[in-house]
Amino acid sequence: MSDPLDIGVLGYRFMGKAHANALDRLPMFFDDAPETNRHTIIGRDEEALAEAADTLGFQHTATDWREVVDEVDVFYNLGPNHLHVDPSIAALEAGTPVLCEKPLAPTLEGAREMHGAAQAADVPAACAFNYRFVPAIRYAKRLIDAGELGAIRQVRGRYLQDWLSDPDAPWSWRNDEEAAGSGALGDLGAHTVDLARFLVGDHAGEMKRISGHLQTFTEERPVEGSDETRPVTVDDAYSAQVEFENGAMGTFEASRVTEGHKNDHTIAVHGTEGSVEFSLERLNELRVMTGDNRGYETVLVTDADDPYVDHWWPPGHVIGWEHTFVHENYEFLSSVRDGTAFHPNFADAYEVQRVLDAVERSDANGAWVELD
Amino acid sequence: MSDPLDIGVLGYRFMGKAHANALDRLPMFFDDAPETNRHTIIGRDEEALAEAADTLGFQHTATDWREVVDEVDVFYNLGPNHLHVDPSIAALEAGTPVLCEKPLAPTLEGAREMHGAAQAADVPAACAFNYRFVPAIRYAKRLIDAGELGAIRQVRGRYLQDWLSDPDAPWSWRNDEEAAGSGALGDLGAHTVDLARFLVGDHAGEMKRISGHLQTFTEERPVEGSDETRPVTVDDAYSAQVEFENGAMGTFEASRVTEGHKNDHTIAVHGTEGSVEFSLERLNELRVMTGDNRGYETVLVTDADDPYVDHWWPPGHVIGWEHTFVHENYEFLSSVRDGTAFHPNFADAYEVQRVLDAVERSDANGAWVELD
Amino acid sequence: MSDPLDIGVLGYRFMGKAHANALDRLPMFFDDAPETNRHTIIGRDEEALAEAADTLGFQHTATDWREVVDEVDVFYNLGPNHLHVDPSIAALEAGTPVLCEKPLAPTLEGAREMHGAAQAADVPAACAFNYRFVPAIRYAKRLIDAGELGAIRQVRGRYLQDWLSDPDAPWSWRNDEEAAGSGALGDLGAHTVDLARFLVGDHAGEMKRISGHLQTFTEERPVEGSDETRPVTVDDAYSAQVEFENGAMGTFEASRVTEGHKNDHTIAVHGTEGSVEFSLERLNELRVMTGDNRGYETVLVTDADDPYVDHWWPPGHVIGWEHTFVHENYEFLSSVRDGTAFHPNFADAYEVQRVLDAVERSDANGAWVELD
Amino acid sequence: MSDPLDIGVLGYRFMGKAHANALDRLPMFFDDAPETNRHTIIGRDEEALAEAADTLGFQHTATDWREVVDEVDVFYNLGPNHLHVDPSIAALEAGTPVLCEKPLAPTLEGAREMHGAAQAADVPAACAFNYRFVPAIRYAKRLIDAGELGAIRQVRGRYLQDWLSDPDAPWSWRNDEEAAGSGALGDLGAHTVDLARFLVGDHAGEMKRISGHLQTFTEERPVEGSDETRPVTVDDAYSAQVEFENGAMGTFEASRVTEGHKNDHTIAVHGTEGSVEFSLERLNELRVMTGDNRGYETVLVTDADDPYVDHWWPPGHVIGWEHTFVHENYEFLSSVRDGTAFHPNFADAYEVQRVLDAVERSDANGAWVELD
Repeated sequence: MSDPLDIGVLGYRFMGKAHANALDRLPMFFDDAPETNRHTIIGRDEEALAEAADTLGFQHTATDWREVVDEVDVFYNLGPNHLHVDPSIAALEAGTPVLCEKPLAPTLEGAREMHGAAQAADVPAACAFNYRFVPAIRYAKRLIDAGELGAIRQVRGRYLQDWLSDPDAPWSWRNDEEAAGSGALGDLGAHTVDLARFLVGDHAGEMKRISGHLQTFTEERPVEGSDETRPVTVDDAYSAQVEFENGAMGTFEASRVTEGHKNDHTIAVHGTEGSVEFSLERLNELRVMTGDNRGYETVLVTDADDPYVDHWWPPGHVIGWEHTFVHENYEFLSSVRDGTAFHPNFADAYEVQRVLDAVERSDANGAWVELD
Repeated sequence: MSDPLDIGVLGYRFMGKAHANALDRLPMFFDDAPETNRHTIIGRDEEALAEAADTLGFQHTATDWREVVDEVDVFYNLGPNHLHVDPSIAALEAGTPVLCEKPLAPTLEGAREMHGAAQAADVPAACAFNYRFVPAIRYAKRLIDAGELGAIRQVRGRYLQDWLSDPDAPWSWRNDEEAAGSGALGDLGAHTVDLARFLVGDHAGEMKRISGHLQTFTEERPVEGSDETRPVTVDDAYSAQVEFENGAMGTFEASRVTEGHKNDHTIAVHGTEGSVEFSLERLNELRVMTGDNRGYETVLVTDADDPYVDHWWPPGHVIGWEHTFVHENYEFLSSVRDGTAFHPNFADAYEVQRVLDAVERSDANGAWVELD
Repeated sequence: MSDPLDIGVLGYRFMGKAHANALDRLPMFFDDAPETNRHTIIGRDEEALAEAADTLGFQHTATDWREVVDEVDVFYNLGPNHLHVDPSIAALEAGTPVLCEKPLAPTLEGAREMHGAAQAADVPAACAFNYRFVPAIRYAKRLIDAGELGAIRQVRGRYLQDWLSDPDAPWSWRNDEEAAGSGALGDLGAHTVDLARFLVGDHAGEMKRISGHLQTFTEERPVEGSDETRPVTVDDAYSAQVEFENGAMGTFEASRVTEGHKNDHTIAVHGTEGSVEFSLERLNELRVMTGDNRGYETVLVTDADDPYVDHWWPPGHVIGWEHTFVHENYEFLSSVRDGTAFHPNFADAYEVQRVLDAVERSDANGAWVELD
Repeated sequence: MSDPLDIGVLGYRFMGKAHANALDRLPMFFDDAPETNRHTIIGRDEEALAEAADTLGFQHTATDWREVVDEVDVFYNLGPNHLHVDPSIAALEAGTPVLCEKPLAPTLEGAREMHGAAQAADVPAACAFNYRFVPAIRYAKRLIDAGELGAIRQVRGRYLQDWLSDPDAPWSWRNDEEAAGSGALGDLGAHTVDLARFLVGDHAGEMKRISGHLQTFTEERPVEGSDETRPVTVDDAYSAQVEFENGAMGTFEASRVTEGHKNDHTIAVHGTEGSVEFSLERLNELRVMTGDNRGYETVLVTDADDPYVDHWWPPGHVIGWEHTFVHENYEFLSSVRDGTAFHPNFADAYEVQRVLDAVERSDANGAWVELD
């Protein structure tokens, strides 16, 4: 596979830019990454699309994903959640590897179909949970896998934002159940659930019981540029209690209405021998309590032998949020080239979706939900 | 009531020392506090008791609380949880004001009886949730009551300790359901629930729905000085999800097995306009996000006009954990003298107990529990 | 010496209260401390004095220290700096042990005389640098003495306050050279210099070269309750560079005009193998970088085997600023009883004063000053 | 100037990569940036150079800068310090705009010549003090310029690293006076001095008096891949005291031997009304104490209206160290295109160099040095 991989991308806004930037940076920093062509970018608004193609460096534009998914070597599905299902399945059925943004689908049913399509296909089907690719998170996993924390007993995750704190913040598709599936739960909680599985799944097992709670504080929001409002049909915040197979406890929560927190994804893992804590707003750091330490050590995870760091800068020169996409693209494209397994894949993402669904069912039923 | 108040105290260990110290310090720092006599200290082990009386400054000792509760002006019940019910009720029935350590009782039934006795009595019946008397907590309440946080939406509380992290840590009465009622839930969670009610009760209302989760990681523990083990019949950790009357969400958790945390009682309150966060290991500080601030401000709550601070030292001279007992004793004894209402009283503590009980029932039933 | 020690105290304000409280608490928490009598409190304002005696628990009052210094077993000199010299020397000449507040004297000459009197006397002459008695500082010294930091290379100390930040903050004796000697330098810098000597003196040697800088930002201040102003004849802030005998570098600074800092005494020591950092506003903590650690560990110095902690509360129950005075009084009074050496003594305090004086001379001369 | 600017770059290691990356990223994120051609990369080792050209995206290589400086539109001088003088002057004399890495030159004399050449030239001559382009630093300057801190009284800067802490860390040109000029002083201190001038220069004026201190702890170091050692002829650490024209005090220090600090460039500015503090290891944050705040607020400087941030990601999505180079290149290249003034220029860098030189002279003389 010595020709560059032609990449087709659905979506040209926030995530489109994040992945285009990642593709752009691979040659300079990951010299063994597959070569890529930003071939076609797909969207509905032709004018915006042309401008995006120019800025993001794509050769072609298309308004119908059907015409693209079997013409490219790799398909990136970065559209809103309700566009995740059909194009991803079509691509997989055409034998095109897929990288789909998270959460996998707005509904469990959609996720199940995608997972089925991925199982039937012979190519990587990746779900873009980018926080698995933070060096500090990888380093945390190293410590956990090496037994430095002992037996896992608690996983505590929160993801707090404030952008909907103001009841007059405008309506967007992210407030709509049809388009988004859920609110803070699917948008933020999905990340927490994925990280929890990534970090402790091999030790604590899967989540087997869940109790969930959803809340919508603002029932309708103004439509920008109009006098109208539209109903908010998703949650502003969720919380969940979890029991893992080994008896470990999980406590998760997320909110888009928490004043003072911009992008505060904090996850802590506690075991019989130690603890780690990570916080996204300080993503170069990991707080580590292991061995004979008496308290948490603040580790700047920027040493040459830390995960991915040798590709970048000398110790102490911090990286940013976007670098996680570079690492993710590097791993995914390498898997495409080499025919190796990639995680998180659709099976992982489907497990996450089952957890999200269980949270919603528990909230509706007022009872714990068993996952088997 | 110009004579000193004769104080009778049941319990001479950790809590006995904390309250004796508080009584000892009042004259120098709270010149309008009622005068007190450390009259009688009560316990079973006569030798230890005599030594405690000497160290803690009590005039008399007694091995039977029945002989004391109506002989003193005030009765402090600082014994283990299973000794809270009968002596407190006897004192109240004798018209003696009571200060009882938390949680109110090992069982909801016991707490209900105590609450009933307090209602029937004409004297203050206090429950010693001392963290209400931290200056930073009082200052947080000031901000909340002044509307600086807007409408309350979230209360997040955790209380993490590590002293049972080691499976070989010795058994004590705190591991026994008979003596303690519950584990982390009653010992630590009770504090969180009380603080939550104190801070947001007037704004978010009571907790109306609860989902709980308990876990015991170590099933038996060695008995110190013997080859035997005894069963652990209480929880090592709990978590809970809560809905308040106004729809606000609560997420609470506590653990005695979390490595890296000694006495980490952290509580955060978030509203439409702002947030506050308090952490016990840094009890002189409050993190405050209000007004036009862009992030949390770290406020050292040691200014002269901060709650209780004018009694102590100039700004920047921090106080410690024990000072909360001085404030608590000051307020309680003033209520006794003045015949005014004291909070937290047995009614407050009974509400806390109802929440703890709901957590246990929810855990047992696998369902949310309604409180009405 | 089985009779209680009669204590005579000059000064009844801030420091008078801090030491009276310390004496008051010894019996309950330090059972092997010498018994004491708060015998006589000395001051000029008879009314205020009578009230202080009542609050602070002294049996007698006196307006002339001359009548007291040889009548008591121990003399505490807690008056303003210009009253340190004569009463302390008189006490020592009468064979009465002295505890004098810091800095030792307003002038180097005064300090030298006091040091001489102490050398000639056969009793302890202590200078009350209370921060030597913070558990976290003692723990830092343990680590340094055990070689955990390797060879000492840097000592960095700052002491930042804000109470004179406002140019309209009122004049007090602390702004007057006659009464105080110097400003931030003597009041705050003296603490830093003493801690530096305490922590690294045995390893880096004494300070041998110094360069200093003083600045007064507000030249006169209003007199409270009048229309007048008085000149400020001391520094608002100082800085200093230091070379120790072993070549280690010191950088010190203090200010009373730094917005955002109430009582921020921070000292860091760096060696070839590790670092420690202490900050007074979080005095229960020590930041420790040693061994194979990759970053600073935040140690809560409240374990039972930490210095002094076994006298107080269980792990995680923090102490306050005033506890340092209890420890200091315990050590000093034990030395008085046992006839053992006490540090910091007048010799230590005289060394500190020589450093302060060198800072002033260097500022005046625009040149480094050698200390030999 | 609608053709792309041809860029010639001397140096292909750390700084070469940092600037090549910056040039590479401009088109996607700064759509009004001038178009550039990575034309020629210059170095001595032809093989390494060819590989660098390939990785970093340069069209040509050259081993003699003389052949390049007048053939390109812009010349980047990113070589070791001793190569800063001649090539930069040659480029300026050829009318080619120059961006030169910091510090400007190994000696004051070299810096003066460069400054003279820049004055004589009609094109921008920039010195790459990249930390001026951190959003949080720009935001700090906004606050200072808006008067939020009041009159400036203190600037406190430190730059601590640990990579030479081990006496066996290998020798490099950075340990050599000929090649580097100085050690921590020029490499790290230059950044601090530049930031101090940038932040407070318009308010406190220039630095007018300086006292300096240099120290070399390890006198010789092993040469990698040989049995030899070479002498260390520069400082491992420096400190300085400064007086600004308005009387404000500066305290600066840097070290390459401070355990626990990887790249800790911390600068604080204090005024009569407020304070700010920045720390490079958390470069997305600014600690701000202004207005009615009671303590420092931790501001995440990632909002859309924060400096440069609108070019990148939504609020809360942090950037890294390398982004400062993108901003710097954007500003510099825009100045080249538009013929506008750029800062920091050679005049700024020469002022920095005068300060560094004064530190060295003061250390040598044992006296304060006046700058006029």
